[in-house]
Amino acid sequence: MRVVVIGSGAGGLTVASNLRKYSKEVEITVFTMEDKVAYSPCAIPYVIGGDIDSFEEIVMHTPEYYGKHGINIVTESEVLEVASSQNLIKYRLINGDESAPELITLKYDYLVIATGGYPFIPPVEGNDLEGVFKVRTIEDGAKIKEWSKTSSKAVIVGAGAIGLELGYGLKQIGIEVSVTEMLPQVLPRSLDPDMALKVQEYLEGQGVRIILNNALTKIVGVDVAEEAVVGDIKMDADLVILSTGVRPSIELAKQAGCNIGDMGVVVNERMETSVSNIYAVGDCVEVHDGITGQKTLSPFGTTAVRQGKVAAKNLAGKDAVFRPVLNSVVSKIGELEVGAVGLTEESAKMNGIEVVVGKSQALTRARYYPGCKPIDTKLICGLDGTILGCQIIAKETVAERVDTMAMAIAKQVKCNEITEMEFSYAPPVSMVVDPAVMAAEDALKKLSS
Amino acid sequence: MRVVVIGSGAGGLTVASNLRKYSKEVEITVFTMEDKVAYSPCAIPYVIGGDIDSFEEIVMHTPEYYGKHGINIVTESEVLEVASSQNLIKYRLINGDESAPELITLKYDYLVIATGGYPFIPPVEGNDLEGVFKVRTIEDGAKIKEWSKTSSKAVIVGAGAIGLELGYGLKQIGIEVSVTEMLPQVLPRSLDPDMALKVQEYLEGQGVRIILNNALTKIVGVDVAEEAVVGDIKMDADLVILSTGVRPSIELAKQAGCNIGDMGVVVNERMETSVSNIYAVGDCVEVHDGITGQKTLSPFGTTAVRQGKVAAKNLAGKDAVFRPVLNSVVSKIGELEVGAVGLTEESAKMNGIEVVVGKSQALTRARYYPGCKPIDTKLICGLDGTILGCQIIAKETVAERVDTMAMAIAKQVKCNEITEMEFSYAPPVSMVVDPAVMAAEDALKKLSS
Repeated sequence: MRVVVIGSGAGGLTVASNLRKYSKEVEITVFTMEDKVAYSPCAIPYVIGGDIDSFEEIVMHTPEYYGKHGINIVTESEVLEVASSQNLIKYRLINGDESAPELITLKYDYLVIATGGYPFIPPVEGNDLEGVFKVRTIEDGAKIKEWSKTSSKAVIVGAGAIGLELGYGLKQIGIEVSVTEMLPQVLPRSLDPDMALKVQEYLEGQGVRIILNNALTKIVGVDVAEEAVVGDIKMDADLVILSTGVRPSIELAKQAGCNIGDMGVVVNERMETSVSNIYAVGDCVEVHDGITGQKTLSPFGTTAVRQGKVAAKNLAGKDAVFRPVLNSVVSKIGELEVGAVGLTEESAKMNGIEVVVGKSQALTRARYYPGCKPIDTKLICGLDGTILGCQIIAKETVAERVDTMAMAIAKQVKCNEITEMEFSYAPPVSMVVDPAVMAAEDALKKLSS
Repeated sequence: MRVVVIGSGAGGLTVASNLRKYSKEVEITVFTMEDKVAYSPCAIPYVIGGDIDSFEEIVMHTPEYYGKHGINIVTESEVLEVASSQNLIKYRLINGDESAPELITLKYDYLVIATGGYPFIPPVEGNDLEGVFKVRTIEDGAKIKEWSKTSSKAVIVGAGAIGLELGYGLKQIGIEVSVTEMLPQVLPRSLDPDMALKVQEYLEGQGVRIILNNALTKIVGVDVAEEAVVGDIKMDADLVILSTGVRPSIELAKQAGCNIGDMGVVVNERMETSVSNIYAVGDCVEVHDGITGQKTLSPFGTTAVRQGKVAAKNLAGKDAVFRPVLNSVVSKIGELEVGAVGLTEESAKMNGIEVVVGKSQALTRARYYPGCKPIDTKLICGLDGTILGCQIIAKETVAERVDTMAMAIAKQVKCNEITEMEFSYAPPVSMVVDPAVMAAEDALKKLSS
């Protein structure tokens, strides 16, 4: 049996390595347009900002490593066609002579489409100037890092997690930074405006300029970027980074005849597409929201890994399903950890779900223990008290606290259960009453009034 | 209505302050033998070790503060009698002339017994010498801190959390320390031997001597301690600390006619004793184990707080219940955070529950992110995969990870659900596959084989 995987991101490589665990016989070939595989794209801003010394460090394994484990990775290759009726793909090597691309044909028994996403580039004048970068691959990151050595003024377009992480990172290495966002807040996908303001104020306190409510109009320069214009605000910029979101790469799946939904490639809970021997995983597929039931995207490494495991099990004849998502996220922006899971207050409203909100301002450790840090917690609860969402900001332990709330949301825990829950306590590491309990008590007050 | 509370620990004061929130009219009087209230006993080892500058810092509020909020705290007083048939108590002030204790009578409408626990003192020769200390109150702590200034060799009897925290703390201030334990491991109540060994090795690496399998035989000295003998091992010791556990203080409850169980004062889930207008909360009561259903103790500040809230609500005419416990615990021993919740492998065996164990050795953050630390995770699962217990050791984020597993155990989550769960991910704060997921996968392998 031969399994062909298109894409070497978290999704594709998880399928490959898990499938190899279950079966020594199956032949596994992975195609990727890149020359490096098994790296963490989420770490790119931290290499640029200097927290991590080099891009080499964020690469976990080489293609040769996979080769030794019986996974054939064809780097710098482009799959141009999927002929699903004949169970074959056609690809070419792009590391050779580009002018004479020889098409090579490969048969498959099962195909896994893990083509990921591509960065959305705002269709404005000057988006192709030198000094204008997208940020998706390790190669993009290396180019930005190199360019930043001679840069003094950067404009980052898009105030999502990557944009803010990069903003802090570039400021850290001495560059004057503006982050711009067309929406009226930073982190619009994961935070409500009240919580987003705390992140904004932190970054402004660190000297990063934040411009909201303005979309990129154009980039000005002769060959090289000199100025970025958002709305009608002009800013000198010798470095412009477009972190304006990612779109699912669905072309190959479409060509293969797979159903495409409003958001991405349609898969069932076994990660099978509508074509019987084709699976799809990762940023290219659409998933269901665990609370609203609606179709959504979940372009996160963790989601890709979980989907890859499910696909691998099913390919190996086992039985596994991928559940609707809550989209747990966390980001480290400077010293600040920002995390969220489930619905925001805003997204609840947009979905017509009535909610109450509970908030707390507390500390990560006992008040008197050196190093304790302020922590802001916001819980979003349905009118029956069920926790539907959570947002947390602090300088430590946010990811783990979000995970506890993710577990609570997944198990449909109610506010009063949170207040009764046993949070572990020792003064050097926690408060005697957990910040989440305080937020739940705040929500309960509103529910009972 | 007058509510009398005996005891000003976490349980007693939580009843008082929560009851005041619900009712401005009720008269609340709290009796305590101490002169300080509202401090955190769990913080005492960290003041002794110097992490916290002084005992003043761990006191949250003064008696006067409570007085201003309409809670009358009678410090340095001893309640000698509860005459429940007449709804009255008799007490004396012990801060005055001890030779002429005047008994004062006070009527109550409701009584709350929050008498806590008393330290068990091994009945051996020399346990009353100078230089021999128990560690329960802030006064005990202050005495130890004072004595430690001229001490060079300490023996701590009992390798529970307090004993180990103190052991590290005294070593930190330059004292040669041995911690002794009659059982064959450190932290016998919360960890299995394999995990306990990691804590032991860490402490030994820090220069703390650990002696297992030996109970205290005697303490030798003329007026002042000079030597501690455990089993037949003699050790020079000018400071001996008995951290040999706590027993529920049940005398007043017994005298009041409340039913006493095998472990402590019997209460229903409303925190009512068998006497109709008497409640009991905190270390003096027995509770039910959330997994085995058996009676147990839960002598933790967090438990006392949760019980105090339940009692206050019921006293205020609301309706609240206290659920069986999982005994989430966490301790910081040097740089090490050690946490546990639910059953250990050993306690499962003792209860005749067949389990499988899943373990992982992982990192707290991405491998390449500076400051990532090793983390050991152990999950204990029933044969149907249900998570019954968890033990975690690392130098950060243990408390919060234990809380996630506490939520999982409370909601009877199974191993396969853990592997499917959405843990939040960003390289600076987490691994793409959570250590708990790795441990759950390890357990699943054993369950399916």
